[in-house]
Amino acid sequence: MAISFQVSKTLKDTQARVGRLQTPHGVIRTPAFIPVGTQATVKTLTPEELKDIGVQIILGNTYHLYLRPGEDLIKSAGGLHQFMHWDRPILTDSGGYQIFSLEGLNKVSEEGIKFQSHLDGSTHFLTPERVTQLQIEMKADIIMTLDECIPYPFEYKQTKKSMERTNRWAERCKKTIQNSKFKIQNSKPALFAIIQGGTHQALRKEAAKKLVELDFPGYALGGLSVGEPKEIMWEVISYTTPLMPENKPRYLMGTGTPVDLVLAVGLGLDMFDCILPTRLGRAGTAFTSQGKVVIKNAEYSKDFTPLDPECSCYTCKNYSRAYLRHLFKAEEILAQRLVSLHNLYFYNKLMEDMRKRIKEGSFNQFKKDFLRKWENQRRSPNAEL
Amino acid sequence: MAISFQVSKTLKDTQARVGRLQTPHGVIRTPAFIPVGTQATVKTLTPEELKDIGVQIILGNTYHLYLRPGEDLIKSAGGLHQFMHWDRPILTDSGGYQIFSLEGLNKVSEEGIKFQSHLDGSTHFLTPERVTQLQIEMKADIIMTLDECIPYPFEYKQTKKSMERTNRWAERCKKTIQNSKFKIQNSKPALFAIIQGGTHQALRKEAAKKLVELDFPGYALGGLSVGEPKEIMWEVISYTTPLMPENKPRYLMGTGTPVDLVLAVGLGLDMFDCILPTRLGRAGTAFTSQGKVVIKNAEYSKDFTPLDPECSCYTCKNYSRAYLRHLFKAEEILAQRLVSLHNLYFYNKLMEDMRKRIKEGSFNQFKKDFLRKWENQRRSPNAEL
Repeated sequence: MAISFQVSKTLKDTQARVGRLQTPHGVIRTPAFIPVGTQATVKTLTPEELKDIGVQIILGNTYHLYLRPGEDLIKSAGGLHQFMHWDRPILTDSGGYQIFSLEGLNKVSEEGIKFQSHLDGSTHFLTPERVTQLQIEMKADIIMTLDECIPYPFEYKQTKKSMERTNRWAERCKKTIQNSKFKIQNSKPALFAIIQGGTHQALRKEAAKKLVELDFPGYALGGLSVGEPKEIMWEVISYTTPLMPENKPRYLMGTGTPVDLVLAVGLGLDMFDCILPTRLGRAGTAFTSQGKVVIKNAEYSKDFTPLDPECSCYTCKNYSRAYLRHLFKAEEILAQRLVSLHNLYFYNKLMEDMRKRIKEGSFNQFKKDFLRKWENQRRSPNAEL
Repeated sequence: MAISFQVSKTLKDTQARVGRLQTPHGVIRTPAFIPVGTQATVKTLTPEELKDIGVQIILGNTYHLYLRPGEDLIKSAGGLHQFMHWDRPILTDSGGYQIFSLEGLNKVSEEGIKFQSHLDGSTHFLTPERVTQLQIEMKADIIMTLDECIPYPFEYKQTKKSMERTNRWAERCKKTIQNSKFKIQNSKPALFAIIQGGTHQALRKEAAKKLVELDFPGYALGGLSVGEPKEIMWEVISYTTPLMPENKPRYLMGTGTPVDLVLAVGLGLDMFDCILPTRLGRAGTAFTSQGKVVIKNAEYSKDFTPLDPECSCYTCKNYSRAYLRHLFKAEEILAQRLVSLHNLYFYNKLMEDMRKRIKEGSFNQFKKDFLRKWENQRRSPNAEL
């Protein structure tokens, strides 16, 4: 077995569930948030800081790491964990999303994707086999199938064709890992399949059916948060999540805000990654118990209270809003560190709280309270949720 | 008494000495290096990281902090220590150097300096009294007199006129602190006088004589490292240091490289500040036991050894040169953090080693070994010292 997953409790009034995902580099308690470490670093932070926050798993990106520093270097380093000094689980994204969304031409064939590097315009060709091999060599705990990502709006015929190809690629990824002799601590990395199908329920159903038949150790919902209206995103999540096996981890890719996470957990999803906490952190926007705080705003110039009075993170215990605002105005790097740290702490604490409330059976109340609170924030004049 | 200073040992074969400087926020063992925290942060690092390295005192800059975030805010925060979450000693520079060296017009009169902000071009007027008051309000432990800084080469008549004005300003700064009722933990901040006089021995002598008569708790050597040849800088340091009282701390401002520090300690200087370790660290240049390492160089691309194999800092214990190089190439902020941290550790360890060797009476041998080692580095093809 690559990994093992046990759901220890599923609620009846929502689909929320708590689980335990065992990987070669340790256990992940679900629902779990996965901070993004695209280039072999979660931007601005050290692994020790992430561990202090309680981060269980981080995400690396095959596309970026393949281009720079390259597979050979990571392999020589002994894998991504050793290269970046992180000893907890790593999930690597296959790079499909990046190939299609970053600048540079790309050309898809049944065999694979020919694309230009966003760094230097050089031409590369990646196949499902090669992408799987790359992820295996990086020694990630959880790896993803190569998927074709088409832009929104998802025209039916194109979406169907692309989804069917993504499914065939998933099968090729699976064969690659089956044939691989590589093991980390006596187990192979777990290959998760990505369900595509755009905003078409029939296509999502077809994709899920095929991939479930192929029996992957985990399933991901891909192709969302790409510009579609939020209502449509939730519609797709609502009808696709029940198509994912109950006994396997369910991973919602690239989403979302704190509200998104609470809603998605309520629908029975287990894993989430998103750049929001770190990207907004570097820009000076903090997620707090009182809603978003845009620290550069003049209203905080003489505010000696913490970023979030209810928060126990290092930033909130030691620094004032006025000081953080000064650091941002003075373009000091410490500012980006401190708010990124706070935001990841906030996200991680939110997941912890949800796990606790699911175990206690009171998640539905938590969800109602949380949404009411954030809905009020949204209505307040200074919020920009 | 503002501060107390005891020299516990002075060597005979060099002028090197170890001392103990008691300030309101704690003891500084000298010789000591003072990392630069211009804008109320030592760039990229937290106070905890500085303390882990063993940093005893940091430097804040009155010019920068006066312009941004402004005296009122720092006063409201309860002083610079509380504002920036640093509880060890702080020395503030008076801002003279910045007023004269940063962009923007300035006009000096006997009363003070009219100048334009480098941030927004706004006009300001600072007098010796006002600069002293600003530093008192920031609650720094050691504060500096306002000095006029003229550009190199130091024309004799202009240098003499400027030095004499600097001395009169020092007297006015002294009166200001004498008249101030302000105290931190029952003591006033210690006002150090800055000896000017350019590259003219007679003028340095005149400046020192006058300032020693005025009896300050510490003396600084200013107006160096401003473009003069290194030989001339050492000539000035060599004849000026003995003019500074033996029973007072002697502070060499704005210098220097590791070799500079070893030479200056040998001449009997006690305190040093310099932007080099942090500025070069952010640019990816590390000071190591093997000389400078420019981490972006291709030669380190597959080098899995630490930045400095002889170093015990966090960076060297956990990361390889290849990883650090990757982070720099990928423009990741963690790179700047890790090399800044290493460089400050290197500087602090160097001071520690010197204190130890002075106590043991073997500093002269240490100095010879150190200089020989660095001289060899300089001759090696990859060094750029």
